[in-house]
Amino acid sequence: MMKVPVGISNRHIHLSRKDLDILFGEGYELTVLKDLSQPGQFASEEVVTIEGPKGKINNIRILGPVRKETQIEISRTDSFVLGVKPPVRDSGYLEGTPGVKVIGPKGEVELEKGVIIAARHIHFHTTDAEKFGVRDQDRLRVVVEGERGVIFENVLARVSPNYALDFHVDTDEGNAAGLKNGDMVEVLKYEE
Amino acid sequence: MMKVPVGISNRHIHLSRKDLDILFGEGYELTVLKDLSQPGQFASEEVVTIEGPKGKINNIRILGPVRKETQIEISRTDSFVLGVKPPVRDSGYLEGTPGVKVIGPKGEVELEKGVIIAARHIHFHTTDAEKFGVRDQDRLRVVVEGERGVIFENVLARVSPNYALDFHVDTDEGNAAGLKNGDMVEVLKYEE
Repeated sequence: MMKVPVGISNRHIHLSRKDLDILFGEGYELTVLKDLSQPGQFASEEVVTIEGPKGKINNIRILGPVRKETQIEISRTDSFVLGVKPPVRDSGYLEGTPGVKVIGPKGEVELEKGVIIAARHIHFHTTDAEKFGVRDQDRLRVVVEGERGVIFENVLARVSPNYALDFHVDTDEGNAAGLKNGDMVEVLKYEE
Repeated sequence: MMKVPVGISNRHIHLSRKDLDILFGEGYELTVLKDLSQPGQFASEEVVTIEGPKGKINNIRILGPVRKETQIEISRTDSFVLGVKPPVRDSGYLEGTPGVKVIGPKGEVELEKGVIIAARHIHFHTTDAEKFGVRDQDRLRVVVEGERGVIFENVLARVSPNYALDFHVDTDEGNAAGLKNGDMVEVLKYEE
């Protein structure tokens, strides 16, 4: 039986070097608030505001380190507050996604794209993937027990020696299933 | 195959006659904004604010007609904004639930109980229940297809000649599964 811990992702932003410069000032370095479950990734002390056609949301946490492209991950609940219609996407696939305005202490960026609802996925370290017989890009089922029990279908497996074992959902998914960080859930392959 | 339409419940409040009097004035009558799918039920034009230890939420829609007891149905996402910990409950079961402050144009009520996260359920008209072989209080599975496909477990069946066929979820559940009002989902019995 394959058991995996849950990590619930609140809305957050990854910034490019260029956008971090505009929002916080040339050459600005993010301050580590807390290390995340994935090695090398961290929540920074810095936050920004994002603004869509219908509303804005304050205190959007920046996750570091900087990336090639700015990407904002929100829940579908958030998307109604902002008035944008982001697709459900895997991280890094930003073609055709909506933009929003990002507001920092030193400047603003009007993004042309970059807002997604992150597709739920499981990070596997290569060793875990071998142990469980899972390959990168496999689709899996995740079973959540309890009074809000659900089965999540089509959960993407992502395998890398840089990953730690974790089932990532957003706050809508976590709340719908009554989950909290660190809960253990069962993962099934479709042939099972 | 049993197909049922989806109704997504946004946060809302049902008021007792006594609390409506305090919040809007003695003998106040709610104004119908829109009839709901369940016969005789309506969304009113009137809204209130609710306030918990951590924050408040404006524009909470009142659903009519008045009920025996005041009941507030919110999502788990909302519960974090307010700073309360409501249980997942069937409508009407309010023992041991938290209260909040309710603020109307003419007065305020400090509720001692009444806040729940509504347990997902299906309303069946008696005729539909007979057709599908479902009895009141049965537990069912609901299958949602698509990129956010999920199976909802332990969905309560509620049968009455006063009900219209509808699968009720809250906004966390609707958003987690990528649902919108009127979507058709498949319902399975556990023996199937």
